[in-house]
Amino acid sequence: MDATTASALAVRPLPQVMVEPLVRAALLEDLGRAGDVTTDAVVPPGALLRAALVARQQGVVAGLDLAALAFRLLDPAIVVEVMRPDGSVLAPGEVIATIAGPARGVLTGERTALNFLCHLSGVASATAGIVAAIRPWKAQLVCTRKTMPGLRAVQKYAVRAGGGGNHRFGLDDAVLIKDNHVAIAGGVVEAIRRARAHVGHMVKIEVEVDTLAQLEEVLGVGVDAVLLDNMGPQMLREAVALVAGRALCEASGRISPATAPAVAAAGVDLISAGWLTHSAPVLDIGLDFRA
Amino acid sequence: MDATTASALAVRPLPQVMVEPLVRAALLEDLGRAGDVTTDAVVPPGALLRAALVARQQGVVAGLDLAALAFRLLDPAIVVEVMRPDGSVLAPGEVIATIAGPARGVLTGERTALNFLCHLSGVASATAGIVAAIRPWKAQLVCTRKTMPGLRAVQKYAVRAGGGGNHRFGLDDAVLIKDNHVAIAGGVVEAIRRARAHVGHMVKIEVEVDTLAQLEEVLGVGVDAVLLDNMGPQMLREAVALVAGRALCEASGRISPATAPAVAAAGVDLISAGWLTHSAPVLDIGLDFRA
Amino acid sequence: MDATTASALAVRPLPQVMVEPLVRAALLEDLGRAGDVTTDAVVPPGALLRAALVARQQGVVAGLDLAALAFRLLDPAIVVEVMRPDGSVLAPGEVIATIAGPARGVLTGERTALNFLCHLSGVASATAGIVAAIRPWKAQLVCTRKTMPGLRAVQKYAVRAGGGGNHRFGLDDAVLIKDNHVAIAGGVVEAIRRARAHVGHMVKIEVEVDTLAQLEEVLGVGVDAVLLDNMGPQMLREAVALVAGRALCEASGRISPATAPAVAAAGVDLISAGWLTHSAPVLDIGLDFRA
Amino acid sequence: MDATTASALAVRPLPQVMVEPLVRAALLEDLGRAGDVTTDAVVPPGALLRAALVARQQGVVAGLDLAALAFRLLDPAIVVEVMRPDGSVLAPGEVIATIAGPARGVLTGERTALNFLCHLSGVASATAGIVAAIRPWKAQLVCTRKTMPGLRAVQKYAVRAGGGGNHRFGLDDAVLIKDNHVAIAGGVVEAIRRARAHVGHMVKIEVEVDTLAQLEEVLGVGVDAVLLDNMGPQMLREAVALVAGRALCEASGRISPATAPAVAAAGVDLISAGWLTHSAPVLDIGLDFRA
Amino acid sequence: MDATTASALAVRPLPQVMVEPLVRAALLEDLGRAGDVTTDAVVPPGALLRAALVARQQGVVAGLDLAALAFRLLDPAIVVEVMRPDGSVLAPGEVIATIAGPARGVLTGERTALNFLCHLSGVASATAGIVAAIRPWKAQLVCTRKTMPGLRAVQKYAVRAGGGGNHRFGLDDAVLIKDNHVAIAGGVVEAIRRARAHVGHMVKIEVEVDTLAQLEEVLGVGVDAVLLDNMGPQMLREAVALVAGRALCEASGRISPATAPAVAAAGVDLISAGWLTHSAPVLDIGLDFRA
Amino acid sequence: MDATTASALAVRPLPQVMVEPLVRAALLEDLGRAGDVTTDAVVPPGALLRAALVARQQGVVAGLDLAALAFRLLDPAIVVEVMRPDGSVLAPGEVIATIAGPARGVLTGERTALNFLCHLSGVASATAGIVAAIRPWKAQLVCTRKTMPGLRAVQKYAVRAGGGGNHRFGLDDAVLIKDNHVAIAGGVVEAIRRARAHVGHMVKIEVEVDTLAQLEEVLGVGVDAVLLDNMGPQMLREAVALVAGRALCEASGRISPATAPAVAAAGVDLISAGWLTHSAPVLDIGLDFRA
Repeated sequence: MDATTASALAVRPLPQVMVEPLVRAALLEDLGRAGDVTTDAVVPPGALLRAALVARQQGVVAGLDLAALAFRLLDPAIVVEVMRPDGSVLAPGEVIATIAGPARGVLTGERTALNFLCHLSGVASATAGIVAAIRPWKAQLVCTRKTMPGLRAVQKYAVRAGGGGNHRFGLDDAVLIKDNHVAIAGGVVEAIRRARAHVGHMVKIEVEVDTLAQLEEVLGVGVDAVLLDNMGPQMLREAVALVAGRALCEASGRISPATAPAVAAAGVDLISAGWLTHSAPVLDIGLDFRA
Repeated sequence: MDATTASALAVRPLPQVMVEPLVRAALLEDLGRAGDVTTDAVVPPGALLRAALVARQQGVVAGLDLAALAFRLLDPAIVVEVMRPDGSVLAPGEVIATIAGPARGVLTGERTALNFLCHLSGVASATAGIVAAIRPWKAQLVCTRKTMPGLRAVQKYAVRAGGGGNHRFGLDDAVLIKDNHVAIAGGVVEAIRRARAHVGHMVKIEVEVDTLAQLEEVLGVGVDAVLLDNMGPQMLREAVALVAGRALCEASGRISPATAPAVAAAGVDLISAGWLTHSAPVLDIGLDFRA
Repeated sequence: MDATTASALAVRPLPQVMVEPLVRAALLEDLGRAGDVTTDAVVPPGALLRAALVARQQGVVAGLDLAALAFRLLDPAIVVEVMRPDGSVLAPGEVIATIAGPARGVLTGERTALNFLCHLSGVASATAGIVAAIRPWKAQLVCTRKTMPGLRAVQKYAVRAGGGGNHRFGLDDAVLIKDNHVAIAGGVVEAIRRARAHVGHMVKIEVEVDTLAQLEEVLGVGVDAVLLDNMGPQMLREAVALVAGRALCEASGRISPATAPAVAAAGVDLISAGWLTHSAPVLDIGLDFRA
Repeated sequence: MDATTASALAVRPLPQVMVEPLVRAALLEDLGRAGDVTTDAVVPPGALLRAALVARQQGVVAGLDLAALAFRLLDPAIVVEVMRPDGSVLAPGEVIATIAGPARGVLTGERTALNFLCHLSGVASATAGIVAAIRPWKAQLVCTRKTMPGLRAVQKYAVRAGGGGNHRFGLDDAVLIKDNHVAIAGGVVEAIRRARAHVGHMVKIEVEVDTLAQLEEVLGVGVDAVLLDNMGPQMLREAVALVAGRALCEASGRISPATAPAVAAAGVDLISAGWLTHSAPVLDIGLDFRA
Repeated sequence: MDATTASALAVRPLPQVMVEPLVRAALLEDLGRAGDVTTDAVVPPGALLRAALVARQQGVVAGLDLAALAFRLLDPAIVVEVMRPDGSVLAPGEVIATIAGPARGVLTGERTALNFLCHLSGVASATAGIVAAIRPWKAQLVCTRKTMPGLRAVQKYAVRAGGGGNHRFGLDDAVLIKDNHVAIAGGVVEAIRRARAHVGHMVKIEVEVDTLAQLEEVLGVGVDAVLLDNMGPQMLREAVALVAGRALCEASGRISPATAPAVAAAGVDLISAGWLTHSAPVLDIGLDFRA
Repeated sequence: MDATTASALAVRPLPQVMVEPLVRAALLEDLGRAGDVTTDAVVPPGALLRAALVARQQGVVAGLDLAALAFRLLDPAIVVEVMRPDGSVLAPGEVIATIAGPARGVLTGERTALNFLCHLSGVASATAGIVAAIRPWKAQLVCTRKTMPGLRAVQKYAVRAGGGGNHRFGLDDAVLIKDNHVAIAGGVVEAIRRARAHVGHMVKIEVEVDTLAQLEEVLGVGVDAVLLDNMGPQMLREAVALVAGRALCEASGRISPATAPAVAAAGVDLISAGWLTHSAPVLDIGLDFRA
């Protein structure tokens, strides 16, 4: 792994066909019904600009394709040159990309581009922070379904750019049996039995457990993964020992760079953190204009 | 103002026609192509559930209409009863609303409803925190265009629910002349002249200034508001004195509950904070199931 | 100002991202489920055509970007060369633009292109007609929210191309208090107070008044603009005198090139006319094919 | 035929599924990102209103379903009672429908509802005016593809409400061979031959002719209809005689209530007028509020 | 007619603006929220591929534009070269087109491209099979409104590519009076009268008849076409004789290559078959990768 | 399992929010721009109808929710009563559901409702046919990504209604490594290693193998499933023996009711068949009108 890249494998870009609707919608949300009245008034059509996307703090970049597309959809003559691709670790002051072309498009697109870039880089950076904190252990950091409505695919992409992994993308791609499901089914064994009978052979099954007794019951039936919810490090260690490799062990509950190492040290396979996608602050990236 | 309500006026709900497309898209993003495979497998059609949306920490609630709509779009038989409407100050453990009806719809809609509710309540709570900190002064807290793509209308609504105000909703509803516009126009006076000639009579004009010299130049021409960007409290005080009521004074730059009072005390009319919409952490609200 | 241009400033084009959805929808509305059956039957793929958009009457052109896009979306090989850009005053018989390329795309796109161009040029021409009639006075002509559903952004653009200005773009970008609001609020002073407390600092407030008594009451509170609805020239003159510069004076009600001068002569700042966007007849522009 | 109804058969409403997307888009276009800030500020949630849609001039009404839907989408509690359904001839001052319910929804929906209603009633009234002028003759008045982009289906509906008929709805539902098609095909006979070979058995074929010589050539091959473009009454009469019932005769070109009778008297079967849909002024209908 | 082309006239491609929404939707349906995880994991960005679309069985090709667009929307660098255009008769093993470019886009687009191509070629091939079977007679084979939801325009295109014709494209482009309409109208004569009074002059009228008595009644009034539903060859022959050229004769009901000749031999003008679009099996076409 | 139900568990309906966009689009595709001109002409608004959806052949029903929604979206007054819910085995002549209400809506919705119902029931019936043929063995029948563009979610639902299971829903919910991936990766072991490193812990990995040598190589690394492509029964048996429970064994390639038993008898866990979704003929269901 390149020392300046957050993700173990270079993160693979999402096809433009997947992100173009998002970028178009974001531009229209900002342009409203009158367009950019300030730029329209002040900036003549012929004016050109050179600018640079510059990191104002340390972090990991994500979302450059969306930012570049925002500019290009406003004016195909705008050229975006990327120096530090998605997944790169940024030093404060580092130039991430340069933007050159008609000033009107650059100024009109600035906010939409930055809104994507700062948020997704914030997610990637938050991810990278915890990933670094748990590097000594085997645990992988993964995100959850606690995402911003409409942005799940790109937020999960940003987690990958930050070196994390993805848990379920939706209600449809894996089974996660929680306490309410168990209560309705009349027991965890029955709930698992129903899930097995219902879902396809390519769908994994995970069960949330709160106690070691529940865990033993679940292991008796066999599942792909167990979600050890809100357990302290000591209880996690006992749970991992109990599982003994028969299922993946996922820990969750108020994960932060400070708390994650103790959780990872308990030997779990996965640590999931909703915070990465629902509450990560933006990474401060600015658009600096050049003479 | 009711002691338990964050906003001076009760916040007015957005019409359903404005939020329904967002809620539908969020549900489809979670349901994918197979729907909720866990609930489909485990929960029989006839099962009923009662649950409550409960605040797990102190804050201000926003987004109940979207949360309720998520449940109702999945099953019109689900009844949502609201105890603490948007804008209410919540105590930890307080019940915000109850949800009752077919268990399948309640379980399937839980995450989508909470994603809207926790995020928007987070925005409202962040707003209310700063609003409370600057209450002794006249300054109003406002949000910016630094929003999550696709969520601007509802985020700005959440700021209102938290007792804040809204700055521009887009590039089209007010003029904001920044340094790049000035540079291209060849001076702030010319930039303002062009803006006046271009925009309609119902559009206000604001100019960003970095120094007192710039400020004097701008005041010579006359604008509706000046954006005093990244000035310290002392310089802000001088700027406010210089303006002497001839324009609204807006301060911006790294506003937090800790820094805001000093800024407000400088006598500005408005304090704008991108953080409210781009980085506010969620308010922790859970869905607790009842026997 | 160029003698042959209707607008004081060259009108700024709307970004393609704003108009492309409209043009795509219009093409699909015309193509239906079978496409252009006449052209498909009669015109071989290799055939080429040269044609010119020609003004059949005097007026002001608007909408060339939409017309050109209609052709280009059907066949990127079609080349549109513009001689007289949006905002130009056209003489009868004048060539506005030439279209050259594959005959099939040109013939299939003709009606969609002309529907946009003739309507928007009609709006621009209607605007220019009244603008010319009131040139001796300071009053600016503005359009209203009485627009064709779905076409507001481009109709308001056409008004700008014709030399007019834009009033509100929607219910959300300015306050306009009408008699029903006043009645419900229990008085105009209370209505204005509520509006001030509710809306952001970048939002202007206008109040509709029918009598001079109402006007005095409004001026006592202070607003950005007053809408003097359906007043005769004499009453308008008295109203303007009463306002004495304390607010912008807008006159409305059955404005036409014949009636506008008397209204303008009364000294108002603004004249608003719904007719520009809801009833302006098309400008007759044809597509003439060349040998 | 009821003396107060414009259309021979009561016009059949379009299914809601066809018009709902239009009405939703129109509401969103007006609500923008902040909704109705005036009403939100001034009108309390509990307030109720009663209002009436009243004709301010004589004409034919069309579009009541769209107007009613605009109100109902804003608030399902609003009740719309229709006195004079689409197709009714209105006297000035006549009440068309009453609207009762929550004041906020009524005020917010007023403009969108009236934009549909006044425009579509304008189209219906323009149609009815010419239909009345040609009543002594057999000719039917029909509209064309010269429609407002996005509104074709509802404009064509309004023409039916006004007692007119519809020509092609798009490029796909009938063949209309024009001079450019003929030129490319190398002759009208060849153009018709190609059309016959290409299109389905349920598709009619019409050919535009400018001279009697062309007409004879076309009749030699046989088509469903001939479009006699821009011919004077005398030439039209000769053309009709020449056709002698072998095809439908359609006249077009600058049709108005003044010119239509002479055209109809020439014996044509159809008179087509683009003006009905591209330039008809609105019918003045207002929303009057009741005590 | 070229011996290797199924359609009498080369089938005309649908404009990209008509098919692009379908192809984008199909790609998004397959990419989901994570994209092509297999290709993302295994195939490096620089890898190139050459592949060929190869017929695995005899048939007629249709849908190449959609297949090519699927690849190009994923990566504009992918080059598709077509050897055998839509409407060509394919021999087993024949190369239809070559695909060359970035391996990631080719692999990701393969299934979407083939889903369109195999299905539409299946429709074209099914059509060509029956067309060949009835070649000795005058009858034309046409498809119906029994189509796959969302795919009507492209399925009807595929029928044309296979040498067939199209019946109605929807409920709106022709009248087809069936037994239930007749029952409600109180007789076929009244039903036809109502249809004539209602629909435009470019709309043809067809009536379904089950018996020769009904047929006589219909012929007495006069219609454009009669649908002879589920009649045996002998009865069809009598019906055709009775019609004697006064209307087009369409036969329908369980048409297959085996049954069609007897129906065609009865002298009908048209044979309609829902099977072409609702049940035609795919044509087996594969994407073979080259060294 | 109920003797008359095809699926082991009652199939769970898809939420309306998932299918409503499909049904609306299908209705609009059929209504076009003029609506149902036949019904509009012939059927008066007050007329009522009673009708029944009747099976004309044996099979398994699927899609009733979509069919019912088509009617209800046209007229909420139409009542659909279901006798035989999705998944039921139908005898010829059996009444599946009754439809009662305004005749206009019933007649207009008939074709859209039947297009969904007959196709999805065709998929369910094709599935049930093969499921019945392989009942003696453990193999489960599953469908593939070879689906009709736009209909994947509902086709996969229909397979479940017919008693089958679902393979991948898209490129994103599981890894399937094919020969081209292997070739590019330079070997199957390296391809699997890359997949493991890339995808999340809830994503299963399957590898396509053509020979027993490949199979051994794959088993050495370990995967969740192997796809035994186009192997004969004898080779399948050897492959199953070789796997010895270390992975799920899936067989594919030209599966039909005739060929499936031999494949199932070879001991595989899964049989996948693209034919279920790309080529299953419709189930003949009619709408019979009652007196």
